[in-house]
Parts: sequence; C-alpha cells; structure tokens
Amino acid sequence: MDPLYIIKVGGNIIDDASKLDAFLKSFASIKGNKILVHGGGKLATKLAKDLNIPQQMIEGRRVTDAETLKIVTMVYAGLINKQIVAKLNALGSNAIGICGADDNTIIAHKRKHPSIDFGFVGDVDKVNNRLMLNLLHQHINIVIAPITQDVNGQLLNTNADTVAQEIAKSIATHFITTLIYSFEKKGVMKDINDENSVIPKIDEALFAKLKDEKAIFDGMIPKLENAFTAISAGVGKVIIGDATELSNLIEGNSGTTIS
Amino acid sequence: MDPLYIIKVGGNIIDDASKLDAFLKSFASIKGNKILVHGGGKLATKLAKDLNIPQQMIEGRRVTDAETLKIVTMVYAGLINKQIVAKLNALGSNAIGICGADDNTIIAHKRKHPSIDFGFVGDVDKVNNRLMLNLLHQHINIVIAPITQDVNGQLLNTNADTVAQEIAKSIATHFITTLIYSFEKKGVMKDINDENSVIPKIDEALFAKLKDEKAIFDGMIPKLENAFTAISAGVGKVIIGDATELSNLIEGNSGTTIS
Repeated sequence: MDPLYIIKVGGNIIDDASKLDAFLKSFASIKGNKILVHGGGKLATKLAKDLNIPQQMIEGRRVTDAETLKIVTMVYAGLINKQIVAKLNALGSNAIGICGADDNTIIAHKRKHPSIDFGFVGDVDKVNNRLMLNLLHQHINIVIAPITQDVNGQLLNTNADTVAQEIAKSIATHFITTLIYSFEKKGVMKDINDENSVIPKIDEALFAKLKDEKAIFDGMIPKLENAFTAISAGVGKVIIGDATELSNLIEGNSGTTIS
Repeated sequence: MDPLYIIKVGGNIIDDASKLDAFLKSFASIKGNKILVHGGGKLATKLAKDLNIPQQMIEGRRVTDAETLKIVTMVYAGLINKQIVAKLNALGSNAIGICGADDNTIIAHKRKHPSIDFGFVGDVDKVNNRLMLNLLHQHINIVIAPITQDVNGQLLNTNADTVAQEIAKSIATHFITTLIYSFEKKGVMKDINDENSVIPKIDEALFAKLKDEKAIFDGMIPKLENAFTAISAGVGKVIIGDATELSNLIEGNSGTTIS
C-alpha cells in the first residue's frame, strides 16, 4: 500500500501569510499522496464583524445562523480554499479544492443538543471516499474545506479536526495512513509555555496518566481523543506538531507521535 | 462519442432563488454529461456594498482590485458554487464544484489594456481538460466558478461566458458538444421587448445581415461572436435561451440555435 498523509492545518497558520507560505512549501515537499484539511476561523470572524453579524462561540463551536453559514462557506470553501490551491499549483504541487458537499463526500446532520441551538453546525454521519480515491490515484493533492451537507442539500459548518479524522478513518484501509494535526506549537507539551516540554510519544496508558495528573493542557485533550479514535479505526499513526516542519514530524524528529 | 452539455447560467437566474431552483431541476433532468458554468454578479456587488468597497464596471467588466478579488472568490467559488453543488446533490444529480484554479484547469493572464487597469481580471490562455475528462468519465456533473489563475498562482476574475466557451473548445474533440448560454430571456430576439421575436436559427450569413441592419440588440453580439468562435473550434452547436427550459432548448423547441 502507498502512504497517505492527511494534514489538518490550524487557524493561526492560515491567518499568517508567511507562516502559511512556509507550511505550504513544507506540504508540497512531502512525497506521495496528500490531503490538506483547513479551517480559517479568524478570517470568518473578521468578515462577520465587518458585516455587523454578531458571532457567538459556545464550547469552542461557532453558533452558525443563516448569515454566518454564508460567511463560513465564502471564507472556507471560497477564499481560503482557492488561495491554498493556487499557491500549491504555483509550487508545482497540483491541487484541487473541494468541500464536504462536493460529490456528497461528507454527509452530516444538523447538531442536536438538549439545550443549545448551534444553528447550521454539522456532525458527520458518513464519508464517501469515491472522489478522494479517484483524485489520489491520479496523484492530485486534495484541499478540503470543512463545509459539509445533509441529505437534503443543506450546507453545514463542521469542525475541521473532526473532518480530518473522519476522512482518515474512511480511507485508512486503502493506504498506510498518517493523520497530522499541524499548528503553531511544537507538539503536545506538558507545560504550554515551554516549547522544550514536548512529549515525543503518547500511547493510551500515558494519555490516561497525563489526564489524571492534569499534566497536559485542556485544549489538547479533544485532539488526543480524536487521535486515539482514528487509530482504533485503522489509521496507522497520528502526529501533532509544528505546521512548518512537516518532514521532521513525519520522520519522528519533531512533534508528538500517537500510536 | 457521448453527448456533453456545457451550460452557462446567467446572473439574473443565480440571484433569484425560485428561478435558480427551476434551472437546477431542468439541469438535473438532462441525461448525460454536463458542465455548469456560473457567475454571480449581483451577489458580489451587494457584498462589496455591505463592506464599503467601491465597485467600478468598465466595458461590462468588474474592475477587480485586491479586495474585490477576495469578494468574487468568496461569492463565486465559495457561496454560489457550493450552494449549487448541494442543491444538485439533493436532486440526485451528483456534482463537484471547482474553479479554474483547481488542478490548473484554466490558466489565464492579467488583462493587458493600453489605457485601463482592470486589476485582477484574467484573460484565458489555456484550458487543461484532465480533471474535467476524468470527472465526466465517472458521470459526475461539474460546476465551475469563473475564477482562474496565472502561472504564478495569482487568482484572477474571468468572464463566465468566456470560461464556458474556452472549456467547450478544449473538450469538443472528446464529446458531441453542445454549448448553451442560458438566461432569463427566450433567446436571441429581434426586438428585446418582444418575447415572440426570437430567431430560432442563426448562421454566419444571417448574423452578418442582422448586424448590418442593426436588427439585434447590442448585448447579444458578444455572445453570438463567442458562439461562432466555439463552432469554428469544433463545438457542435451553440444554443441561447431560457434557463428554465433546458430540455426544450436541447430539442430545438425553444431558444436560438447557432450553427
């Protein structure tokens, strides 16, 4: 089987032109099949502000009313997606940008919650990997915006970490799959203020211990839980680390590897 | 060879939710291979107004400064493209939305003009049909936003009529190709105010005569010139007519057929 790298890139990288360029160079230099999943939170927040559309975040999710759905569809699936595609093409690393709606790739449903109305936020039901497999077999890089749809054609705003994980799970039997969560930090750190406290390897036993000891910062826990779910579903390896050092992450010289 | 329908849909249809729904039903009902090319001018103008970004139209083109390029990329390649894709999926007519930048499908250059700076407006140099052929062979409908890029990865705003024509020319040897310009009018009319004055068939001799006699309204002349260019390049037929009556257009029961 061929290797496949599914790489989520975090919002702080997207928002910083020079970091984004460094990330894309690093992405383009990886040999083999690649899928890039991006969000673009701050740009969406800025556009909403410029348009006087109030935004509300609850439990880390953007409450997505009809106007906010238009904004995230424009910013994620339009502006950021096509800017990334054009830059990768210019780097000689041909890419196609899609979102979860294209060819019904990701089917989701509107989030159900006992007390909070998240609006047009989608939770993933199913990934159809037909289009992705076809493009990967032609060695075209895929850039995915986290907009999905339900069975009735309603677009939905979906968490990019989850999109990356669900894609990895759906495609893991076809490739030797590595899922990478890349962002502005060096990896999973014991002390969020100390870049030298990166934990190089985490397995389930260590994760349980770190959680018990509260020796890991809260924002990292959902990412790690996602990672272990992906691994139980057949993903070979999950790596968390610096978006501008993808080759080092893949070689195990940087970041945190979860297995 | 299989038939292929390349259908440009005009802005007045895109801007009207019920007309767009009727058009998409009509599009979904066509048997065989289909490509839809859309613009979305009024929505872009509205967003620019809401963001206080002044817009200037010269010779029918939107002067595209850096902020306006972001707007058209968001509106065309993001919002409208994905809304159309999701609606087609819901109609059981699987679709993938791309723009000219995806997989380097349409390479353009920044418009050169002796006296006017159009900004990031692109004129097409070349169409790479690899991705489109691949998707069509899998019977996936393609929805194309008229954003292209130059060889350096600079996104460019390109005329949707031209995009439709260039795609038709690039792909005409692979299919029995029909290029349809669909909009809110019944076809090419002698009198713009009289829906009964549609000219059912136009060839080059009649076109020359109509132009001489000024018996055709100005806005239609570039569309007809595009049509004859496409036909000389191998496109089988060009049809101009009502976006909600695609089957009638194809059967020759409505609209204007150019050959």
